This record gives sequence, C-alpha cells and structure tokens, in this order.
Amino acid sequence: MRLFDFHRAPNPRRVRIFIAEKGIEVPLVNVNLFQMEQLTPEFRAINPGGTVPVLETDDGLYITECIAICRYLETLHPEPCLFGKGASAEAQVLMWNGIIEHEGFHAVAEMLRNWSPGFRNRVFPGPQDIAQMPELIERGRKRSAQFFDRCEQRLLDSQFIAGDRFSVADIALLTLVDFSDWVELDVRASRPDLDRWYQGVSGRPSMGA
Amino acid sequence: MRLFDFHRAPNPRRVRIFIAEKGIEVPLVNVNLFQMEQLTPEFRAINPGGTVPVLETDDGLYITECIAICRYLETLHPEPCLFGKGASAEAQVLMWNGIIEHEGFHAVAEMLRNWSPGFRNRVFPGPQDIAQMPELIERGRKRSAQFFDRCEQRLLDSQFIAGDRFSVADIALLTLVDFSDWVELDVRASRPDLDRWYQGVSGRPSMGA
Repeated sequence: MRLFDFHRAPNPRRVRIFIAEKGIEVPLVNVNLFQMEQLTPEFRAINPGGTVPVLETDDGLYITECIAICRYLETLHPEPCLFGKGASAEAQVLMWNGIIEHEGFHAVAEMLRNWSPGFRNRVFPGPQDIAQMPELIERGRKRSAQFFDRCEQRLLDSQFIAGDRFSVADIALLTLVDFSDWVELDVRASRPDLDRWYQGVSGRPSMGA
Repeated sequence: MRLFDFHRAPNPRRVRIFIAEKGIEVPLVNVNLFQMEQLTPEFRAINPGGTVPVLETDDGLYITECIAICRYLETLHPEPCLFGKGASAEAQVLMWNGIIEHEGFHAVAEMLRNWSPGFRNRVFPGPQDIAQMPELIERGRKRSAQFFDRCEQRLLDSQFIAGDRFSVADIALLTLVDFSDWVELDVRASRPDLDRWYQGVSGRPSMGA
C-alpha cells in the first residue's frame, strides 16, 4: 500500500492526519503539483482525474476521494474509530464531511484558484483548462463566510463538528481552516466557538502530518 | 422517521430510489422548492443549509446529504447491499459517489442555475443570494462533458459505475443523467457505454420513485 501525496496540498493532508490518528504507516509517493506532475500521462493512468491523494492498495486498486480512502483504512484498522459508532453517529460524520467539502472546500478553493497566478487556467483540479475569473474571488469569499458561520453555529453546542467525538469530519474542517490562510481569511477571529474547537483539535500530535 | 422531499429535485430522488431499492417505506413531507419553502424560518430550523432531502430519524435527528442519509438507511436495512461488500468494494462506491457529486452534479448545476430564470440569485442551494453569471453556463457545459467522458471511459470495462454490482453510486449517476435533460444535454448520444449502462439501470422498478 502507498499514498500518492503532495505535502503542501490540503486534501492529501486530510489523509496523512487520518493515518497518523490510526497509528499506522503508509509509504508516501510525492506528486509535485507545483510542477504539474499530476497531469502527466503516467499519473493520469493512475488517476484520470489528475488529483491527489490516491491510495494504491495491496491488490492494485487506486482509490481517490479522501472520504473513500479514509473509509478503506477505517475498515482495515477500526480503532480508534473515526467514522462514528452506530447509525446515527456515522450519518452525522458523513453529513458534516459532505457539508465541509461541498460548502467549505469549494468556496475557499474558488477564492484561491481564481486569485493566485499559480492556478492560471487551473480553476478546477484535474486536466481541464478553465480560465480564472477575478469576480469569483468575492463570490468565494461570501460563500466561505456563510460556511464558517454555519460551523460556528454548530460548534456553539457541539464539542466536535459531527458530535461528541473527534472524527474524520474534524480532520476535514481543521485542514480547511488552515487552507483558508492561503487566501488570507482569518476565519477564527470573529468566531469564538470555531476558535475554541480549533485550539482543541490543532494540538493533537497527528496534526503535524 | 420521515423524509423532507421535493418530487422534482434530483437529490431527493436519489434517496427515494434508494428507499425503493431497499423495499422499505418512509413517509414523505413535501417542501416546495418552487415556492422557496426551503428558506422559511421553520424549515431552516430543521436544516440551516436550506436544502432537501433531510431525513428525520425516530430519535429526532435531522440528517442532510444524500450519502449520509443512505448510509443511515443501509445500516438499519443492510440488504440488499448498496454500499459494496468489503473494504475495496465499499471504497469504490464512496469514491465514485464523490466523483459524481463533485465533478458531475456541480457542473450540471452550474449550467442550470446560471441559466434558468427560476434560479435567479439562487446560483447555489441554500439561503445565500448570489447572482447568475451567464458566462458560467458554458463553463458548466465544458465541465459536464469532461465528467461524462470520464464515466464513459469507466463504463467501457465496468458493468456498473463502482464495479460489478449495482450501488448507491449508480443511483447518483442515473439521477444526474436525467437531471442533465433540464439543461438540454444529451449525454448518452455520443457515449455508447454510458448509454448501455443507462438502458440497464433505468429499467429497475425503483427508478420510478
């Protein structure tokens, strides 16, 4: 088993933190996104979508999408449980992971990818050339604010984002909060409950992964 | 248990088809999106995100996100299995469900929501006013084409989208193919393997749900 990774990108970091929480070892293969290695024919034979992370399993399967990779590792290594125990807890974990991806990651990425010269024509991950549109930076900012306000409201009466236990959804949110620094969003300054949550989870040893 | 639903919208349909495949009964509560009922204070107390579907469980939990709702129902009603059996099969189901949501649904929705007068200022689901940008219609069209090409390539050597068994990911893809009619995309005309797959799955009795 090995993980195709890039140390600077937020999505591979979600999986590295998950692996660290499990206390397991998975060899990393560096795919340098700054040099567009994800778009080479060799890498697109592994993942036609041209994204990292990708987990190569021992039976030669390539798994993309953070939640699918983490679910695979959870089945192989059930403890500590990071997907919730029981139908209700598990549903809340998948629900919040989905909200964080669809409302959070897409919004912050919309800001960054329409802003940074490094993402010129790379407005979406993968092989397709799509031009930047500067007016989408503000749209992404507005969407990001709405998303983090929703997290703040949730964390007012929940210790972790998906309930009373740390989960894979907290890993997604922490990674996104750190990713927001790239677009100079200080998402915690005006959100005391998000900040309280962040102070708690960011101190876990896994977060250095 | 009951499901907050709207019969015309694609995401609630994913859950209705899933319920039909399970052979269970869940009462439906209609939330009329054409009349903006999803944005009333009463409904936003149920789902601050202002979207359907929402599953209300017997212990009073509100679950959003199709994959979370379906996972909840899968745990309660494991047969027939729609999430894959074993770590590898399950990972491929979650992987393809994620690809279909992030690359497929977002692309087709980008076309529709920037095009149709009915979505004026409703470019994203939920409570936020965001103006339409007609230039995003073509961007959505380009992204949609790339996504369906990827499905075509996959279905060249796979009976179902996530492997050799029908799964919740096929439900997502079928719903998306039908949703594409709304923006006048004939996604099957030039994709024979996608068409072969569609002919097979669309005949299932659940698809009338």
